[in-house]
Amino acid sequence: MAIDRGKSGELAEIGEFGLIKRITAEAKIKNESTLKGVGDDAAVLNYPGKRVVVSTDLLMEGIHFNLVYVPLKHLGYKAVSVNVSDICAMNAIPRQITVSIAISSKFTVEAIDELYAGIHLACGHYGVDLVGGDTTSSLTGLTISITAIGEADEADLVYRSGAKPTDLLCVTGDLGGAYLGLQLLERENELFRLNPTVQPQLSGYDYILGRQLKPEARVDMREIFKSLNVKPTSMIDISDGLSSEILHLCEDSGVGCRLYEERLSFDPQVQKMAEEININPLVAALNGGEDYELLFTIPVQDHDKVRNHPDITMIGHMTKKEEGAVLVTSGGVQEIPLQAQGWNPLKND
Amino acid sequence: MAIDRGKSGELAEIGEFGLIKRITAEAKIKNESTLKGVGDDAAVLNYPGKRVVVSTDLLMEGIHFNLVYVPLKHLGYKAVSVNVSDICAMNAIPRQITVSIAISSKFTVEAIDELYAGIHLACGHYGVDLVGGDTTSSLTGLTISITAIGEADEADLVYRSGAKPTDLLCVTGDLGGAYLGLQLLERENELFRLNPTVQPQLSGYDYILGRQLKPEARVDMREIFKSLNVKPTSMIDISDGLSSEILHLCEDSGVGCRLYEERLSFDPQVQKMAEEININPLVAALNGGEDYELLFTIPVQDHDKVRNHPDITMIGHMTKKEEGAVLVTSGGVQEIPLQAQGWNPLKND
Repeated sequence: MAIDRGKSGELAEIGEFGLIKRITAEAKIKNESTLKGVGDDAAVLNYPGKRVVVSTDLLMEGIHFNLVYVPLKHLGYKAVSVNVSDICAMNAIPRQITVSIAISSKFTVEAIDELYAGIHLACGHYGVDLVGGDTTSSLTGLTISITAIGEADEADLVYRSGAKPTDLLCVTGDLGGAYLGLQLLERENELFRLNPTVQPQLSGYDYILGRQLKPEARVDMREIFKSLNVKPTSMIDISDGLSSEILHLCEDSGVGCRLYEERLSFDPQVQKMAEEININPLVAALNGGEDYELLFTIPVQDHDKVRNHPDITMIGHMTKKEEGAVLVTSGGVQEIPLQAQGWNPLKND
Repeated sequence: MAIDRGKSGELAEIGEFGLIKRITAEAKIKNESTLKGVGDDAAVLNYPGKRVVVSTDLLMEGIHFNLVYVPLKHLGYKAVSVNVSDICAMNAIPRQITVSIAISSKFTVEAIDELYAGIHLACGHYGVDLVGGDTTSSLTGLTISITAIGEADEADLVYRSGAKPTDLLCVTGDLGGAYLGLQLLERENELFRLNPTVQPQLSGYDYILGRQLKPEARVDMREIFKSLNVKPTSMIDISDGLSSEILHLCEDSGVGCRLYEERLSFDPQVQKMAEEININPLVAALNGGEDYELLFTIPVQDHDKVRNHPDITMIGHMTKKEEGAVLVTSGGVQEIPLQAQGWNPLKND
């Protein structure tokens, strides 16, 4: 499972400018809005009549990823997905990204090629252009910083702040897989560490591994909303866990929420892995994070429009602020206040 | 000289969302183009009829800065300047920045406040809005990633690629100060390390210290070019050293260059410090970097327009590509090929 980080020195041989040429050679421009990509002091973009949408993320080795079990190509792909997901959460179209990396001399040119192979793969998949970035050295691990830029008509933009009481709360796809995929990787890595002759047991878990290692941003939802003639009143992507994201929508919209446990269904692999590590899959969905699905609200009148769509599940509804944000357990037995128990990066070290 | 990085745990107490609220409280919107700043999945910008210009930089503790002698407030200011400088090098107007940081729990809330005090000071000085970012934890040092966004009319943009043979090569301000300021800080830090009772001797060097610790991006040049009725044919900012930047202009424009040693003059503090460490101040200008002045070319017919401007020095002229890029030493004695001996971040570790 270990990754070959290669012989020291190779990167120094090709130097910064050599590395930049190598990693940008594949950066083919696909969007009309990209007038000038890599190669100058700044990229130049053109968005006549559109709003420009900008989001950024910083990924640190040892905090956001572990190169012992995360292949660099997957990491590159995921780093792009995470940022594109933020653009999707605005109901905008992703168009450009900048990618900055800091690497130590432990990395070979081939390792960086792998990382960028994943980045270019994601750029191709999402139709975004790599238009700039920075490459520098690090005294320790790998750092990746990505900024994503997208466009939207003003009328199409969806903020976190537009939910109204009685709006229906919906989510795309299914939840909990990314967190349980990570638990699986960490368990097998720990077993391997204790006994290097043990081969990791990953078969039968391809779905949750894929959710963790190669998440897909929901670039498809913008068109789906259009085809259903639905415009969400508020939207956010699920990076920190369902609880935390619901609370964001509630706070920014000034509303409360009732989330129904019985509305959440789980993939069989999510159920199986949750059972193996003795947790309720609901906990993985609420607090796990990294699913990169979209959480959104729609007017209650739009109920019938989304009811039968296979990518959309109605999981609750918004309420008045005074009613708070609560989880209603199956059968309506209990009402438990939602808490942001999501990932707190400042408590991890 | 050491900085107080404080007691462990304080940051964990306020958490990520608490920290974000704290550091964005001062983020007042100044630009019409900023429709939505911090607080959603992405910022929303509006640039009707303009080109959007985007640049990004990644700064790593131990590579780009040493917190033993760089105050956090200065670091915040400089991190913004470095990015704004790239926007200036396109002859564009800086409008927004995103700031992502990774910090270890060694940092106190007060230390982060200091860093952001510098960031906000720079935002005020340059008239840019802080519109987004990411805060996360780091296993080791401080990481700062900034993306700057600006605007320009298409007709005003200046690329690296427009220089013609016979164009005059010009530079703003003076060079070498930032590099020699760093040498001074490192020398005094080393003396202090060897004997902590020795106080650092920094008096009389305020200019070069300022050049290193608090560089200013040349946001003024755009208006100066306008008032002189001059549009540079190519431009780049001096981050890596004059040699390296001249070679960029030559390569991207397909021209050669003759740089005249006798055209470069140096600040008395630059001369004094260079003497103390036994180097030619020319070397600091050519290979030192971090001066964040603008290097640009203008048509030879514009000679008289810039001749008497106190902020502009003509230091050479472009030639045909075949003639190469050379330094002509004082009195025309020698012609030395320019080499990119600038900072190679991949050789430092």
